[in-house]
Amino acid sequence: MTAALKPDMLQTRHRATLDRALEAIRTREFWSPHPEHPKAYGETAGADGKAAFEALLGGRFELDQPGTDGYTGPTETSPYGIELGVDYPHADPDVLLPAMRAAMPAWRDAGPETRALVCLEVLSRISARTHEFAHAVMHTSGQAFMMALQAGGPHAQDRGLEAVAYAYAEQTRVPGQASWSKPQGKRDPLELSKSFTAVPRGIGLVVGCNTFPTWNGYPGLFASLATGNAVLVKPHPRAVLPLAMTVKAAREVLTEAGFDPNLIALAAERPGEGLAKTLATRPEVRIIDYTGSTAFGDWLEANARQAQVYTEKAGVNTVVIDSTDDYAGMLGNLAFSLSLYSGQMCTTPQNLLISREGIATDAGHKAYDDVVSDLAAAVGKLLGDDARAAALLGALVNPGVKERLEAAPGLGEVALASRAVAHPEFSGATVRTPVIVKLDGAKPDAEAAYMSECFGPVAFAVAVDSTADAVELLRRTIREKGAMTVGGYTTSPEVEQQIETACLEEPAQLSLNLTGGVYVNQTAAFSDFHGSGGNPAANAALCDPAFVANRFRTVEVRRQA
Amino acid sequence: MTAALKPDMLQTRHRATLDRALEAIRTREFWSPHPEHPKAYGETAGADGKAAFEALLGGRFELDQPGTDGYTGPTETSPYGIELGVDYPHADPDVLLPAMRAAMPAWRDAGPETRALVCLEVLSRISARTHEFAHAVMHTSGQAFMMALQAGGPHAQDRGLEAVAYAYAEQTRVPGQASWSKPQGKRDPLELSKSFTAVPRGIGLVVGCNTFPTWNGYPGLFASLATGNAVLVKPHPRAVLPLAMTVKAAREVLTEAGFDPNLIALAAERPGEGLAKTLATRPEVRIIDYTGSTAFGDWLEANARQAQVYTEKAGVNTVVIDSTDDYAGMLGNLAFSLSLYSGQMCTTPQNLLISREGIATDAGHKAYDDVVSDLAAAVGKLLGDDARAAALLGALVNPGVKERLEAAPGLGEVALASRAVAHPEFSGATVRTPVIVKLDGAKPDAEAAYMSECFGPVAFAVAVDSTADAVELLRRTIREKGAMTVGGYTTSPEVEQQIETACLEEPAQLSLNLTGGVYVNQTAAFSDFHGSGGNPAANAALCDPAFVANRFRTVEVRRQA
Repeated sequence: MTAALKPDMLQTRHRATLDRALEAIRTREFWSPHPEHPKAYGETAGADGKAAFEALLGGRFELDQPGTDGYTGPTETSPYGIELGVDYPHADPDVLLPAMRAAMPAWRDAGPETRALVCLEVLSRISARTHEFAHAVMHTSGQAFMMALQAGGPHAQDRGLEAVAYAYAEQTRVPGQASWSKPQGKRDPLELSKSFTAVPRGIGLVVGCNTFPTWNGYPGLFASLATGNAVLVKPHPRAVLPLAMTVKAAREVLTEAGFDPNLIALAAERPGEGLAKTLATRPEVRIIDYTGSTAFGDWLEANARQAQVYTEKAGVNTVVIDSTDDYAGMLGNLAFSLSLYSGQMCTTPQNLLISREGIATDAGHKAYDDVVSDLAAAVGKLLGDDARAAALLGALVNPGVKERLEAAPGLGEVALASRAVAHPEFSGATVRTPVIVKLDGAKPDAEAAYMSECFGPVAFAVAVDSTADAVELLRRTIREKGAMTVGGYTTSPEVEQQIETACLEEPAQLSLNLTGGVYVNQTAAFSDFHGSGGNPAANAALCDPAFVANRFRTVEVRRQA
Repeated sequence: MTAALKPDMLQTRHRATLDRALEAIRTREFWSPHPEHPKAYGETAGADGKAAFEALLGGRFELDQPGTDGYTGPTETSPYGIELGVDYPHADPDVLLPAMRAAMPAWRDAGPETRALVCLEVLSRISARTHEFAHAVMHTSGQAFMMALQAGGPHAQDRGLEAVAYAYAEQTRVPGQASWSKPQGKRDPLELSKSFTAVPRGIGLVVGCNTFPTWNGYPGLFASLATGNAVLVKPHPRAVLPLAMTVKAAREVLTEAGFDPNLIALAAERPGEGLAKTLATRPEVRIIDYTGSTAFGDWLEANARQAQVYTEKAGVNTVVIDSTDDYAGMLGNLAFSLSLYSGQMCTTPQNLLISREGIATDAGHKAYDDVVSDLAAAVGKLLGDDARAAALLGALVNPGVKERLEAAPGLGEVALASRAVAHPEFSGATVRTPVIVKLDGAKPDAEAAYMSECFGPVAFAVAVDSTADAVELLRRTIREKGAMTVGGYTTSPEVEQQIETACLEEPAQLSLNLTGGVYVNQTAAFSDFHGSGGNPAANAALCDPAFVANRFRTVEVRRQA
């Protein structure tokens, strides 16, 4: 086979980037090869990306996959009100899965470095089309354009590259060959030559989510591919396009590099088909990456017993507000965290725990009611202008979020009411500001509210008896409900220690005293871990050695030397 | 607390050994700090060890553990016919498990290096008592003395040290602290200080086995302990003593090092209690290491859903015999493999696949019948002298093995009959030579025999149509039944390639053309992987990063800088 992408070309293009990524995951310093600024992609990138996206609408998305037995029909409606109308090929697993398995031996034999470099080429092709992906992510997730560009583009690409770096590192911990010589006293030593080969488990199934199709999809996708597995991508039916584009780009690169494109394929589903269940229990599927509801995550863990299952499920994120030396900074930081993408991030804080006795601040003592009303005012001010609000909030991703938002005032006293925001460009967009509801932490009916995930722009200001009470509630919330993030504000070293100990013991990822431009709901690849993998919100962290080390096995062949 | 074992003392004693182990797992070259030769332990070690072992017999094995609510009564009878009569404390989990959890924070805070060095001190104390452990392993497993000394002593200690090295390596892949500075164009950079802490999952439960209490128990025990977890050891009721001695030694070292001894505890059970099921589903138990039957391993995987479960279960090990340039060497090597510890190793070959058309050898063409009868003769010669036979075979570990051995002649034509061997020292020992049964691979009733694990000194010489047929059967056997080891004999590069490909694809660990002093059923820590973790015989390999990386989680705390 003549490959257009030759190994030396891949080396020249990407080996230095791989090495830099390997260094970054060791030092955890800031690094990214993927620019965040829209203008970094070139003069015409904005217009070109928009045109490329629009050209896809209302048409068939062709993928030259084996086993295509029809089309899904359009399943996506933009949260901004426009019809996407894209029609995806539908696959017969009985044809597609064997074709994917047949593609694997050559990919295995290519070795960890070539696999990593091919993955980096895929990521660089996607990076070059960041504007096009931004529109696709925006109109499936409801993220505002700038967030769709950054979180759906460079940040997702960073998480993909991070997974490739971990996969490469773990696969190369043993040498390819070793000589073994065991002394036998006066006799000749026993001598063996040994070879070690990283081998894939099988087909990795990626079950995508509605809110972050690329960001949550790329780590598992690239981790499985880089460790030699084939990858089948089953997108959320409302967020197919960004992953279909990803699959198509990857198939093109694989072909150019001389590999079988069936190492990656799309499994789009027809409305109501429930395809994930069918695929998840196929014997060929040996790895599953899933982001979504706890109910289906639990189902996968219980039923897909032939596979390694990595799940990110629901959680309840807490911020303990004990005291601060920057009251205005704290309010501004929290207001932004609650508003970004209408609170539709798995990392958005939900429960703000505040002592009934109030808190000490640089602006004097603030009663519980003061803190809540000042936070409400900060959110109100942040989102006072419709155009600015829409650019921060994005749109509600689906009707379920709107229903929860509308039901929230019934849960307690409303400290800040949600309001509808007119979108400057898309009249059909459902844009809402967050609601803040006051709850008494001691009341059982309030507990039913704050001890459940209320996914969307709903925050609970929970009055507790003391900070010690808050830390105890934090601990119980993580243990019983899980948490992707924990925040804390305190000027007391003792309280800081208590919060930190709770997070070490449960375990959960903690951000302390954020008052500037870093938010509890944002993590940076190569430096921050997303989730701990040690509480009910997720059984894996993005990205650590455990996330990749069991996606392959090492086969040793011993020969007498 | 005044600790007798101070950190600098542990550093001086063990840091160089830890570094050497870290190097060995990278290079996979031969290395071991634990001598195999009995005389290496000193002039009086043999007599001292025997006396120490005998002093334990017929008495109470005291462990100062919380929650002791009585004693188990003696549950162990030596396969050599002597009563051990040791009475172990029985624990109330409702008292013991909370005490173990309470011991964990200080162990977590001690960090990966101190934990590793304390584990190395435990191993060095055990190493110094290798002769005593040899008797304890011999009289619970039935291993012959020399094997009990080597496999139960230095080899088990090597596997424990290997697990400590992997645990240390994986916990130190991220720095303890990092500074993160993200450029913001003309504005000040965003700056965070970050700390990363390896935190334990909870209590690790080790469910021990009858045949290799220390060798199979130490990897999980030390991997969990070194990653900050507390470890509860539930030994097989017929092989308690070696693990009780291990727990006692570890508790002493932990105390001397200033830690709570309840970081490790014994959970011996009363006859018929079924304690493993009770413990395995306790919420405090977050990790389980199990070696034993497929039925109970499957039960654990299905029911202990709150825990990471590492299992080694039944398998069917195959040797493909295609051709050889050292016929005598091959026969001698196989005869030894079948005889060692009466075939009671999870790595012992069971199915020898030989073409009906015979094989090419340096001694000319050998028909299927010739190969089988020559192998039978080689085994017969190896075990011709009773004293030598007993020293190689050891004793049958339990009545189940004897029953299977006695039933084996009913499965096909007996090529080599088993015979009873008189043990020179222990008249009550049940010592048997292996039986070799000829089976026709094409016959369905034969398939029922060779496609099941027949644990013990039973080997099947399976006649197949061709080597291609053998490779296909090898593949199917690994996939459906699992395999800890695969052997192959061939002079053909094509056949070698076919066997290797089968092992890469299923996957399984392969030894090719062993004719000297290395046997398919023996692996060396730091260099060889035990199991692949990728077929039904075991879901983990001893020892690789995946075996340790998910026993802890990394908690990050971010602070605005």
